[in-house]
Amino acid sequence: MFPLPAPMRHALDAATAAAASGEVPVGAVVMLGDRIVATAANAPRTLHDPTAHAEMLAIRAAAAALGRDRLEDCDLWVTLEPCAMCAGAIAHARIARVYYSAPDPKGGAVEHGPRFFTQPTCHHRPDVYAGIGERESADLLRRFFAERR
Amino acid sequence: MFPLPAPMRHALDAATAAAASGEVPVGAVVMLGDRIVATAANAPRTLHDPTAHAEMLAIRAAAAALGRDRLEDCDLWVTLEPCAMCAGAIAHARIARVYYSAPDPKGGAVEHGPRFFTQPTCHHRPDVYAGIGERESADLLRRFFAERR
Repeated sequence: MFPLPAPMRHALDAATAAAASGEVPVGAVVMLGDRIVATAANAPRTLHDPTAHAEMLAIRAAAAALGRDRLEDCDLWVTLEPCAMCAGAIAHARIARVYYSAPDPKGGAVEHGPRFFTQPTCHHRPDVYAGIGERESADLLRRFFAERR
Repeated sequence: MFPLPAPMRHALDAATAAAASGEVPVGAVVMLGDRIVATAANAPRTLHDPTAHAEMLAIRAAAAALGRDRLEDCDLWVTLEPCAMCAGAIAHARIARVYYSAPDPKGGAVEHGPRFFTQPTCHHRPDVYAGIGERESADLLRRFFAERR
């Protein structure tokens, strides 16, 4: 087995922590070069906030930490294909690169559904790399939903 | 001239306040029946938050005020066609009805671009009513951008 890149390792640890809180296990990390600027776990129920996906919380925390509303020098690592809300936020934030683990055929908006970054109304297209840590993320999600059935 | 419904009047007032702060003039209101639960103005620059569109702030404030992450008994009034991020948040929040003023051919995601609510990966479709207060909202936006050219 090859080791995962450190940011995806952190994102998967955040996803595991989300599951322990009863939240769908998704984690995200914003990097500025080699530095972690923000780490977040999916938390809509805990926070009473329907927008509190891991990506949104990480982007908001990174922007607050850097004191600006654009993150054009930052990369986002996330354990699941972003939905339309998160893909829109990634474009608004001008994130440079997006790395994600598992595809999400039901709710994803990058390689599924609206394929938002290919839309003419999308004003910033990050470079996208999919599949890094896919098996571990998919296992986490499968186990989470199996326990709740 | 017909008077505007009170929630759209409030949303347009919030949009006017956004312009005064140097933010693109968009305002939003969340209603629970006849009660205003949250009012918000677009504020990404002021808040250093790329996700701080009026709709996002209003939805988050309403969910916090009601102590839950679903707003299935609430309506959203907003002065501009929601973008992909905000349309995604509206679906996640299970908002019942969306009323918006001006269309946004450049960034809108309801009647333009991804037309998110028609996507099979969209898990909740609110009832949508467009054009209420369109002229006033479009005038506000036109004046704002004209002054900055």
